[in-house]
Amino acid sequence: MGGPLAGKQRPRPYSLERDMGSESCCGRGEWLGDALVPALASRPVILANLEIASITRASVAAAAISSSRRGGEIGDGLPADGVTCASWRFGVETNNVRGWRTVPRSCEGYVGHYMLGDRYRQDSAVVTAAAAAYVEGLQLPGDGMDVWIFDIDETVLSNLPYYAHHGFGVEPYNATSFNAWVDKGIAPALPESLKLYHKLLPLGIKIVFLTGRSEERRNVTITNLKRAGYRTWEKLLLKGEGVNGTAMAFKTGEREKLEEQGYRIVGNMGDQWSDILGKPEGARTFKLPDPLYYIS
Amino acid sequence: MGGPLAGKQRPRPYSLERDMGSESCCGRGEWLGDALVPALASRPVILANLEIASITRASVAAAAISSSRRGGEIGDGLPADGVTCASWRFGVETNNVRGWRTVPRSCEGYVGHYMLGDRYRQDSAVVTAAAAAYVEGLQLPGDGMDVWIFDIDETVLSNLPYYAHHGFGVEPYNATSFNAWVDKGIAPALPESLKLYHKLLPLGIKIVFLTGRSEERRNVTITNLKRAGYRTWEKLLLKGEGVNGTAMAFKTGEREKLEEQGYRIVGNMGDQWSDILGKPEGARTFKLPDPLYYIS
Repeated sequence: MGGPLAGKQRPRPYSLERDMGSESCCGRGEWLGDALVPALASRPVILANLEIASITRASVAAAAISSSRRGGEIGDGLPADGVTCASWRFGVETNNVRGWRTVPRSCEGYVGHYMLGDRYRQDSAVVTAAAAAYVEGLQLPGDGMDVWIFDIDETVLSNLPYYAHHGFGVEPYNATSFNAWVDKGIAPALPESLKLYHKLLPLGIKIVFLTGRSEERRNVTITNLKRAGYRTWEKLLLKGEGVNGTAMAFKTGEREKLEEQGYRIVGNMGDQWSDILGKPEGARTFKLPDPLYYIS
Repeated sequence: MGGPLAGKQRPRPYSLERDMGSESCCGRGEWLGDALVPALASRPVILANLEIASITRASVAAAAISSSRRGGEIGDGLPADGVTCASWRFGVETNNVRGWRTVPRSCEGYVGHYMLGDRYRQDSAVVTAAAAAYVEGLQLPGDGMDVWIFDIDETVLSNLPYYAHHGFGVEPYNATSFNAWVDKGIAPALPESLKLYHKLLPLGIKIVFLTGRSEERRNVTITNLKRAGYRTWEKLLLKGEGVNGTAMAFKTGEREKLEEQGYRIVGNMGDQWSDILGKPEGARTFKLPDPLYYIS
């Protein structure tokens, strides 16, 4: 059928022959690859609804299959406030439920299944396919001033190996341990975003990474981006020292500066609503799934 | 737990003692009540995944239970463009997938289950509970100038009895048959929205209904709103003759006029993104679920 989703493809099956960070990557669970295994093998991870005592690469795949069989929509009951985890996620992803600090404790199993199973990848694929269809329909002047903004965390890189180790968002954010993970520089690419990245480059669209990561993590971020397969970009914009306020205010200000410099923001993609709200948003915005955390 | 969802309640079980249109209404399936039965009894409705030859009130409830058992997330395969129906719905509800004209044909069963089962009601309840928590936290001056904007179709009134008869959005929009349904004036209230309406009134928040329905349907709309339990409002704004352009442009213009008149839009709720995008959006916006159709 036609329409905005025309031309979409399902993610290809994982193949060991292909690099983790390459364009054509990966099947379920295994796209997390080596980054997940050492983090998870070190201690048992208990998901409320899963009988997984110790996650290995094989058991991640098994969990994904189990989740898939049940449709990827398993709640282990209700969050404390009386809604199903699936509906809580609906509220989060549609920007109705805001300002939450942690995933409801009773939804750890649900979110874990969602993230490790097919659904997260499929939801991501719908978004990047809509983006691909959009850019294919553009008439670009080709003067090198068209840019695509990508957020970084949970947009082009995935911290799922970290969050799988920390309750899938149930544990309160811990800057020390999260930054220690970031500083390893081994976050895998979100395969669907990497595929889109490789579609944008030959169209002459320049890439701008705009992230709430601080300037002091520039080097490790560059290392990680390249390792994951993002080898070129126009700008990498990190949060400078002394920049306060919300992520949304910071990112909106950076987009204003880009437009002042003559760039045209043809697309803007992030996992948080704060990535894509606030004028100038960009000509078209795309919201990737993220039930793990909320940033205002 | 606290946070934006505190104070939420699950929908109460359906009781025959209570009126369809009253505040305290209804369990699954049966909230559609008498409006659904005559529409559906007239011809068999075949859902791809359901063995339902003829829907009666009892079989609607049975379908809802069946759907619930399977988690409300059943796809009958993939849409033609290669994504699951659940992920297609994710793309739609997050405003990533835009401009679609009909539900993918292979998703009729999925959307039917979703709409008639628990999930649609639960997703609606998350949204209205977030809205209720938001208004409870407001400090209002009480001068009668605070307004809440509700869209009408699939927001305060439900056309699900009609869509259940017309492929749950798989059939192309047919103005003649849809308007004939509207002119009956028997659309039931979406119970969660009616509950929120009854929470807003005693807080001194005035109600503004803002709808793409045309001015010529003012009378039947008034009749239907009152029949469904919405008995008072500040303004009912319909689309005048000769008003062209998108729903989004019309509604944005009407919100501008409201502010010029001195009203403060404390909240704005609709089932379409075109209900809630465009400055002035209102101090807070709420997006109800609607996988049946898209309005730009």
